[in-house]
Amino acid sequence: MSEKHEHNHNHPHKHTQKVVNRLARIEGHVRSIKDMTRNGRDCSEVLLQIAAVRKALDNTAKLLLKDHLEGCVVEAVHKGNEKEVLSDLHKALDHYLK
Amino acid sequence: MSEKHEHNHNHPHKHTQKVVNRLARIEGHVRSIKDMTRNGRDCSEVLLQIAAVRKALDNTAKLLLKDHLEGCVVEAVHKGNEKEVLSDLHKALDHYLK
Repeated sequence: MSEKHEHNHNHPHKHTQKVVNRLARIEGHVRSIKDMTRNGRDCSEVLLQIAAVRKALDNTAKLLLKDHLEGCVVEAVHKGNEKEVLSDLHKALDHYLK
Repeated sequence: MSEKHEHNHNHPHKHTQKVVNRLARIEGHVRSIKDMTRNGRDCSEVLLQIAAVRKALDNTAKLLLKDHLEGCVVEAVHKGNEKEVLSDLHKALDHYLK
Protein backbone atom coordinates (compact mmCIF):
# COMPACT_ATOMS: atom_id res chain seq x y z
CA MET A 1 0.00 0.00 0.00
CA SER A 2 2.86 2.39 0.74
CA GLU A 3 6.62 2.83 0.37
CA LYS A 4 7.38 0.55 3.27
CA HIS A 5 6.09 -2.47 1.34
CA GLU A 6 7.95 -1.80 -1.87
CA HIS A 7 10.72 -4.39 -1.45
CA ASN A 8 10.60 -7.45 -3.68
CA HIS A 9 11.28 -11.14 -3.17
CA ASN A 10 14.99 -10.53 -3.10
CA HIS A 11 14.86 -8.74 0.23
CA PRO A 12 16.86 -10.48 2.94
CA HIS A 13 14.84 -12.35 5.51
CA LYS A 14 15.62 -12.09 9.18
CA HIS A 15 17.11 -15.59 9.35
CA THR A 16 18.58 -16.10 5.85
CA GLN A 17 22.14 -16.45 7.15
CA LYS A 18 21.00 -18.95 9.82
CA VAL A 19 19.23 -21.01 7.14
CA VAL A 20 22.33 -20.94 4.91
CA ASN A 21 24.53 -22.01 7.84
CA ARG A 22 22.20 -24.86 8.73
CA LEU A 23 22.14 -26.07 5.11
CA ALA A 24 25.95 -25.94 5.03
CA ARG A 25 26.08 -28.13 8.15
CA ILE A 26 23.52 -30.54 6.65
CA GLU A 27 25.58 -30.73 3.45
CA GLY A 28 28.67 -31.70 5.48
CA HIS A 29 26.66 -34.19 7.51
CA VAL A 30 25.36 -35.92 4.36
CA ARG A 31 28.93 -36.04 3.02
CA SER A 32 30.10 -37.79 6.20
CA ILE A 33 27.20 -40.30 6.03
CA LYS A 34 28.20 -41.04 2.43
CA ASP A 35 31.75 -41.78 3.64
CA MET A 36 30.45 -43.92 6.54
CA THR A 37 28.40 -45.97 4.08
CA ARG A 38 31.30 -46.31 1.66
CA ASN A 39 33.48 -47.55 4.55
CA GLY A 40 30.94 -50.24 5.47
CA ARG A 41 29.87 -48.77 8.79
CA ASP A 42 27.09 -50.46 10.71
CA CYS A 43 23.68 -49.96 9.05
CA SER A 44 21.92 -48.93 12.27
CA GLU A 45 24.49 -46.18 12.83
CA VAL A 46 24.00 -44.92 9.29
CA LEU A 47 20.21 -44.95 9.78
CA LEU A 48 20.60 -42.95 13.00
CA GLN A 49 22.64 -40.33 11.14
CA ILE A 50 20.12 -40.15 8.30
CA ALA A 51 17.39 -39.62 10.94
CA ALA A 52 19.46 -36.77 12.41
CA VAL A 53 19.77 -35.09 8.99
CA ARG A 54 16.03 -35.47 8.43
CA LYS A 55 15.37 -33.78 11.78
CA ALA A 56 17.83 -30.98 10.92
CA LEU A 57 16.09 -30.49 7.55
CA ASP A 58 12.70 -30.27 9.27
CA ASN A 59 14.03 -27.63 11.66
CA THR A 60 15.54 -25.67 8.78
CA ALA A 61 12.25 -25.81 6.87
CA LYS A 62 10.45 -24.60 10.00
CA LEU A 63 12.82 -21.63 10.37
CA LEU A 64 12.43 -20.77 6.68
CA LEU A 65 8.67 -21.04 6.93
CA LYS A 66 8.49 -18.75 9.93
CA ASP A 67 10.66 -16.21 8.12
CA HIS A 68 8.39 -16.51 5.11
CA LEU A 69 5.25 -16.01 7.16
CA GLU A 70 6.64 -12.96 8.98
CA GLY A 71 8.14 -11.50 5.82
CA CYS A 72 6.64 -12.31 2.42
CA VAL A 73 3.18 -13.40 3.53
CA VAL A 74 2.46 -10.46 5.83
CA GLU A 75 3.80 -8.11 3.15
CA ALA A 76 1.66 -9.72 0.44
CA VAL A 77 -1.47 -9.41 2.57
CA HIS A 78 -0.73 -5.74 3.15
CA LYS A 79 -0.32 -5.26 -0.56
CA GLY A 80 -3.50 -7.23 -1.23
CA ASN A 81 -1.74 -9.76 -3.51
CA GLU A 82 -1.60 -12.67 -1.08
CA LYS A 83 -3.43 -15.04 -3.44
CA GLU A 84 -0.36 -16.11 -5.41
CA VAL A 85 1.98 -16.16 -2.41
CA LEU A 86 -0.44 -18.30 -0.42
CA SER A 87 -1.09 -20.62 -3.36
CA ASP A 88 2.68 -21.21 -3.76
CA LEU A 89 3.03 -21.75 -0.05
CA HIS A 90 0.15 -24.22 0.10
CA LYS A 91 1.74 -26.17 -2.74
CA ALA A 92 5.05 -26.27 -0.88
CA LEU A 93 3.32 -27.37 2.34
CA ASP A 94 1.42 -30.08 0.46
CA HIS A 95 4.73 -31.43 -0.77
CA TYR A 96 6.34 -31.15 2.63
CA LEU A 97 3.65 -32.67 4.81
CA LYS A 98 2.59 -35.74 2.91
CA MET B 1 26.39 -71.47 11.87
CA SER B 2 28.66 -72.46 9.00
CA GLU B 3 31.27 -70.94 6.67
CA LYS B 4 28.66 -69.13 4.65
CA HIS B 5 27.84 -66.85 7.60
CA GLU B 6 31.40 -65.96 8.49
CA HIS B 7 31.47 -62.43 7.02
CA ASN B 8 31.42 -59.52 9.45
CA HIS B 9 29.79 -56.10 9.44
CA ASN B 10 32.23 -54.86 6.85
CA HIS B 11 30.81 -57.10 4.16
CA PRO B 12 29.42 -55.17 1.22
CA HIS B 13 25.66 -55.03 1.04
CA LYS B 14 23.86 -55.59 -2.20
CA HIS B 15 23.00 -51.90 -2.63
CA THR B 16 25.88 -50.10 -0.92
CA GLN B 17 26.99 -48.36 -4.10
CA LYS B 18 23.41 -47.27 -4.83
CA VAL B 19 23.12 -45.83 -1.32
CA VAL B 20 26.45 -43.98 -1.72
CA ASN B 21 25.35 -42.58 -5.10
CA ARG B 22 22.04 -41.40 -3.67
CA LEU B 23 23.79 -39.71 -0.75
CA ALA B 24 26.17 -38.00 -3.21
CA ARG B 25 23.17 -36.65 -5.14
CA ILE B 26 21.50 -35.51 -1.92
CA GLU B 27 24.72 -33.74 -0.87
CA GLY B 28 24.77 -31.84 -4.18
CA HIS B 29 21.07 -31.04 -3.89
CA VAL B 30 21.54 -29.57 -0.39
CA ARG B 31 24.47 -27.50 -1.71
CA SER B 32 22.27 -26.07 -4.47
CA ILE B 33 19.48 -25.26 -1.98
CA LYS B 34 22.05 -23.45 0.16
CA ASP B 35 23.02 -21.37 -2.90
CA MET B 36 19.35 -20.71 -3.76
CA THR B 37 18.78 -19.43 -0.23
CA ARG B 38 21.90 -17.28 -0.29
CA ASN B 39 20.75 -15.76 -3.58
CA GLY B 40 17.37 -14.83 -2.08
CA ARG B 41 15.25 -17.23 -4.12
CA ASP B 42 11.55 -17.49 -3.39
CA CYS B 43 10.86 -19.19 -0.04
CA SER B 44 8.21 -21.53 -1.46
CA GLU B 45 10.67 -22.79 -4.07
CA VAL B 46 13.28 -23.44 -1.39
CA LEU B 47 10.68 -25.29 0.72
CA LEU B 48 9.77 -27.44 -2.29
CA GLN B 49 13.43 -28.37 -2.75
CA ILE B 50 13.87 -29.18 0.95
CA ALA B 51 10.79 -31.42 0.69
CA ALA B 52 12.40 -33.19 -2.29
CA VAL B 53 15.61 -33.82 -0.31
CA ARG B 54 13.57 -35.14 2.61
CA LYS B 55 11.80 -37.57 0.26
CA ALA B 56 15.14 -38.65 -1.26
CA LEU B 57 16.53 -39.22 2.26
CA ASP B 58 13.51 -41.35 3.16
CA ASN B 59 13.97 -43.45 0.04
CA THR B 60 17.68 -43.88 0.78
CA ALA B 61 16.90 -44.95 4.35
CA LYS B 62 14.37 -47.44 3.00
CA LEU B 63 16.92 -48.94 0.61
CA LEU B 64 19.50 -49.17 3.39
CA LEU B 65 16.98 -50.75 5.73
CA LYS B 66 16.00 -53.38 3.17
CA ASP B 67 19.66 -54.18 2.59
CA HIS B 68 20.13 -54.43 6.34
CA LEU B 69 17.16 -56.74 6.78
CA GLU B 70 18.23 -59.04 3.96
CA GLY B 71 21.88 -59.00 5.01
CA CYS B 72 22.82 -58.37 8.62
CA VAL B 73 19.53 -59.26 10.29
CA VAL B 74 18.99 -62.58 8.49
CA GLU B 75 22.62 -63.45 9.10
CA ALA B 76 22.37 -62.58 12.80
CA VAL B 77 19.26 -64.74 13.20
CA HIS B 78 21.05 -67.64 11.55
CA LYS B 79 23.97 -67.16 13.93
CA GLY B 80 21.59 -66.83 16.89
CA ASN B 81 22.93 -63.41 17.90
CA GLU B 82 20.06 -61.29 16.63
CA LYS B 83 19.38 -59.67 20.00
CA GLU B 84 21.97 -56.92 19.69
CA VAL B 85 21.39 -56.35 15.96
CA LEU B 86 17.63 -56.02 16.50
CA SER B 87 18.07 -53.78 19.52
CA ASP B 88 20.30 -51.40 17.48
CA LEU B 89 17.83 -51.48 14.63
CA HIS B 90 14.85 -50.75 16.89
CA LYS B 91 16.75 -47.78 18.32
CA ALA B 92 17.44 -46.49 14.81
CA LEU B 93 13.80 -46.95 13.79
CA ASP B 94 12.61 -45.19 16.94
CA HIS B 95 14.75 -42.21 15.95
CA TYR B 96 13.61 -42.35 12.36
CA LEU B 97 9.88 -42.74 12.81
CA LYS B 98 9.02 -40.25 15.47
